[in-house]
Amino acid sequence: MAGISIKFGILGCAEIARKVSRAITLSPYSTLYAVGSRTFEKAAKFAKDNGFPASAKVYGSYDAVLDDPDVDAVYVPLPTSLHIKWAVLAAHKKKHLLLEKPAALNVKELDVILEACESNGVQFMDATMWMHHPRTAQMKDFLNDSQRFGQLKSVHSVFTFAADPDFLENDIRVKPDLDALGALGDLGWYTTRAILWAADFELPKSVIALRGPVFNEAGVILSCGASLYWEDGKVATFHCSFISNLTMDITATGTKGYLHLHDFVVPFEEDKASFSTSVESGFTGFLTGWVPKPSEHVVTTDLPQEAQMVKEFSRLVGSIKTERAKPEKKWPTLSRKTQLILDAIKVSIDRGFESVDVIS
Amino acid sequence: MAGISIKFGILGCAEIARKVSRAITLSPYSTLYAVGSRTFEKAAKFAKDNGFPASAKVYGSYDAVLDDPDVDAVYVPLPTSLHIKWAVLAAHKKKHLLLEKPAALNVKELDVILEACESNGVQFMDATMWMHHPRTAQMKDFLNDSQRFGQLKSVHSVFTFAADPDFLENDIRVKPDLDALGALGDLGWYTTRAILWAADFELPKSVIALRGPVFNEAGVILSCGASLYWEDGKVATFHCSFISNLTMDITATGTKGYLHLHDFVVPFEEDKASFSTSVESGFTGFLTGWVPKPSEHVVTTDLPQEAQMVKEFSRLVGSIKTERAKPEKKWPTLSRKTQLILDAIKVSIDRGFESVDVIS
Repeated sequence: MAGISIKFGILGCAEIARKVSRAITLSPYSTLYAVGSRTFEKAAKFAKDNGFPASAKVYGSYDAVLDDPDVDAVYVPLPTSLHIKWAVLAAHKKKHLLLEKPAALNVKELDVILEACESNGVQFMDATMWMHHPRTAQMKDFLNDSQRFGQLKSVHSVFTFAADPDFLENDIRVKPDLDALGALGDLGWYTTRAILWAADFELPKSVIALRGPVFNEAGVILSCGASLYWEDGKVATFHCSFISNLTMDITATGTKGYLHLHDFVVPFEEDKASFSTSVESGFTGFLTGWVPKPSEHVVTTDLPQEAQMVKEFSRLVGSIKTERAKPEKKWPTLSRKTQLILDAIKVSIDRGFESVDVIS
Repeated sequence: MAGISIKFGILGCAEIARKVSRAITLSPYSTLYAVGSRTFEKAAKFAKDNGFPASAKVYGSYDAVLDDPDVDAVYVPLPTSLHIKWAVLAAHKKKHLLLEKPAALNVKELDVILEACESNGVQFMDATMWMHHPRTAQMKDFLNDSQRFGQLKSVHSVFTFAADPDFLENDIRVKPDLDALGALGDLGWYTTRAILWAADFELPKSVIALRGPVFNEAGVILSCGASLYWEDGKVATFHCSFISNLTMDITATGTKGYLHLHDFVVPFEEDKASFSTSVESGFTGFLTGWVPKPSEHVVTTDLPQEAQMVKEFSRLVGSIKTERAKPEKKWPTLSRKTQLILDAIKVSIDRGFESVDVIS
């Protein structure tokens, strides 16, 4: 990939776009090239505040970014309800697409986006950053190791954070016309992805929402959970919420081992992250204690996970541009599976916590 | 309590009785006084192998232990189906009762036991050891702290261990005539207790078993789970299993903090144990990291948790004997609440995962 630098355009000045702008700067195959906002002034301020080079293009509309022929790829952090319009337009303009999660309001909309990407030969990736941390690959090696982890039996994931009163009143993630999936889309996206990831992306056969979801006055989910069931007996549960203290757990239990971590979405620290495993642990009936004790594994990273994401996305785009490679199907496939499960959970909630089959 | 030493009789030579015999020796207010088994030889060998003093009584029946007027209290590690017979008889013989869990096959049987204890003025306690570790009290202080933990919103607990083939074939805990509750009774007892404990022992209004429990050929549960729901919106889930690697988790999330530990049933080490808390954590949208980071709390103990349990039980028995104190109601109350929930989960499983109200 020597010499390759993918030119990014950013649609909108969301808070998360600051982090991704930094990541584009840090990543070796990418350049901050353009930003568009609904006003030129907002875009100009964003470019100035976020390390855009002096040569970067500043646009007073999203369309202008998409019409710039030098833009290779766009990062789209717009509210979910706008994804279908702007993601499809980006694909038609042959822009590779790094799309914030949740990828869409439902799988029907996502399929329109994915079809547009496929027919225009552009790479699709959702911006689930933790997937790209080197820790994630090391954990996967452990889960895939039949000698150490054995067969997966259960997974539990939690992603909660305590939103402040302003967020609960005004954030786009609690507005039915902007992010109608609320906490399920914003946080359940991660817990669902974590569960799928632990299950080697095998879809569950059915899901049942947990009772007691919390809604705001507009009917947007502030807190919910679900149980997921596979043909082979695997079981998973998750809880996601805007009204609990920050928690980011994955617990995966296999026949021979377990995996624990408490910061899967955003690591406690930027340059290293850890996870805990246990393999064939026992406890004696006589003395108190475990033999062997669990192990802590520390994984360092030269780039924060969001820059690892940009690096991988840019590498794929570079291969398409310079080697006529095909877009990598893995990433749209994972997005679609995640969205399918969110859809089923939403139906389960709407139907009074019925069991809902997951049909791809 | 100076000078007090409660004379214990042990009914049966279960493996767990070795641990409790050691605990009776370690605890300051108790003495190993007698052991009874179905044969004198087994009882004699047990006494010899487990540090009973030379003066200890060895009996070839359980009845003989109960008929010994010098026995103050009995520890009963018999199979659950035998609890009602021997626990009630012990109470009638005015023996204070430390009873292995699950306390009974169902709350109806437990009520017979508790009534016998109450009418005979003897102390009842189930042998849930972790309740007595000093770590547990420190964790409770954290959960009760409205400034640090806030209001409890969700709890998840796991207790699994990988039973070997011999256990899965022959252990009393997989036999329908001995421990008909299987993993729900043996392990779900702990996860249910953990959830109740985190919820300050407020009963949930309803429970729903998770789908996909695993049964052996005789219909005994090897693996199952449940979701629990409270009036105020609290939600809890648990998973328990004989067919996954050793896992012992509590995750409790509150509006302001969280609590994590991975060895709640049996600490990793005998003389100290830790737990992790987080208070009003945030993560920045810009850099990767948490502020503040979670804290690790280490709690040392001069006695292993099982000896702390014996010490507390003996203290209560001593107060009854020497100060005419009334038996402490807290312990039978907790046992009964735990059993009520197990009953409801069992009904939910039997009814095809229906929601079942918890009615005390």
